[in-house]
Amino acid sequence: MKEIKSTQNKKIKEWSKLTQKSERRRTGCYLIESWHLVGTAIQTKQPIKWILTTPEQLNQHRDVLNRFENLILITDRVAKRLGSTVHPQGIFAIVQMPDSSSIDPKQVKDGRWLLLDQVQDPGNIGTMVRTADAAGFSGVIFGLGTASPYNPKVVRAMQGSQFHLKLANGNLKDWITNLTTNHVPVYGTILDPEAIDYRKVKPSDRFGLVMGNEGNGMQKQLLKLTTKNLYIPIKGQAESLNVAVAAGILMFELIK
Amino acid sequence: MKEIKSTQNKKIKEWSKLTQKSERRRTGCYLIESWHLVGTAIQTKQPIKWILTTPEQLNQHRDVLNRFENLILITDRVAKRLGSTVHPQGIFAIVQMPDSSSIDPKQVKDGRWLLLDQVQDPGNIGTMVRTADAAGFSGVIFGLGTASPYNPKVVRAMQGSQFHLKLANGNLKDWITNLTTNHVPVYGTILDPEAIDYRKVKPSDRFGLVMGNEGNGMQKQLLKLTTKNLYIPIKGQAESLNVAVAAGILMFELIK
Repeated sequence: MKEIKSTQNKKIKEWSKLTQKSERRRTGCYLIESWHLVGTAIQTKQPIKWILTTPEQLNQHRDVLNRFENLILITDRVAKRLGSTVHPQGIFAIVQMPDSSSIDPKQVKDGRWLLLDQVQDPGNIGTMVRTADAAGFSGVIFGLGTASPYNPKVVRAMQGSQFHLKLANGNLKDWITNLTTNHVPVYGTILDPEAIDYRKVKPSDRFGLVMGNEGNGMQKQLLKLTTKNLYIPIKGQAESLNVAVAAGILMFELIK
Repeated sequence: MKEIKSTQNKKIKEWSKLTQKSERRRTGCYLIESWHLVGTAIQTKQPIKWILTTPEQLNQHRDVLNRFENLILITDRVAKRLGSTVHPQGIFAIVQMPDSSSIDPKQVKDGRWLLLDQVQDPGNIGTMVRTADAAGFSGVIFGLGTASPYNPKVVRAMQGSQFHLKLANGNLKDWITNLTTNHVPVYGTILDPEAIDYRKVKPSDRFGLVMGNEGNGMQKQLLKLTTKNLYIPIKGQAESLNVAVAAGILMFELIK
């Protein structure tokens, strides 16, 4: 088994740069950390390039890890260099990113799709992917201006849901136009009591749901293309809901 | 008008320590930042001790701020010292914390209450308070082991909702026992498909809803005291929902 003991090792230096978008684009890979994620990646047969593990983690998961060829033993210090927390668990994988342009909206004729329009906060994005997974969605489409699905903070919040549903970058104008052409209704969301109360939409197994930017909401030009635009009535004095909470309420209502 | 130009000023040093629980307890005060929060605090007549403002912010909000006596002009450097971001807006207030033990559960005979059992993440907690506000709840009770409502990260996520509903520390065992004795049903939450599907509970204007710890859920001893324990069916492969998303789905279902 290969072993890396130095934090100055060339490969370790390269992999620790996978937090950066440019390096992820250059290599086509991203880094996951913790047994929960690495174990799920193995179980769901992801294209794993390398697994890096401390002796302690290897010991704990020997039966699963020993079946894997590209295994590298690392020291606690190397784990600290790669990890995003003060006390990393000590297990990582370098995973190939799926081809992000792999879905042609023209071909999408059913399923439930979450479309993200310029959503900024990685925690919100990751949480929405996790919720879409829990709600049994087919995939999440990342519109221009939405943070990358493989940003480390998004990855942390997704908690492995990227292995359960499709994630792709996409032009939301194309997506909305093609879905509606294919008779898949698309629901926009808007903070406007004049819009349609979300409780009035009939649950279904085929639709698109668009969530917008935290501060500005959905782009106006997209709101014009949707089948309907929905609103969650606010009963108290809060001005709005957190976008991930709003997405959760809508997704679980629309799948009922 | 008083003016503070030095980041070494004794008061500024003290106020910048209000991020710490011990200092908040010593002084009975916490710090809010941004016009959105300070403006809401003024509008809802909070017990504001001091407002600190840069000349630029004073200029923008002169009509409101000039009515206020305890106004202190600060420099951009002092604002940076107090602020939690790289580019603070330049307006702050020192606000007295309400008496956190002010609600006696024996007296609570109606309303909608969110009870937080050992919830850890300040962002989750603040988001749940904001959602409870949006859903028209009466208040949020912070059980032992739940982060403080005046932790700066909780305050940021609440987005001013602390001024719209009641927040109090409380013993959840007492709360659940007293609410149920007063014929106010209390719903626990549990990740167990054997529990009651949340969609089967009749919406109402009086109930308690308990949300548990991110990793471990609600304490077992509390689950035994509730009227019913609810479950949100997971349709996909995610193991669970983020606690703030789950709380949002439940609160908006129960108020329908």
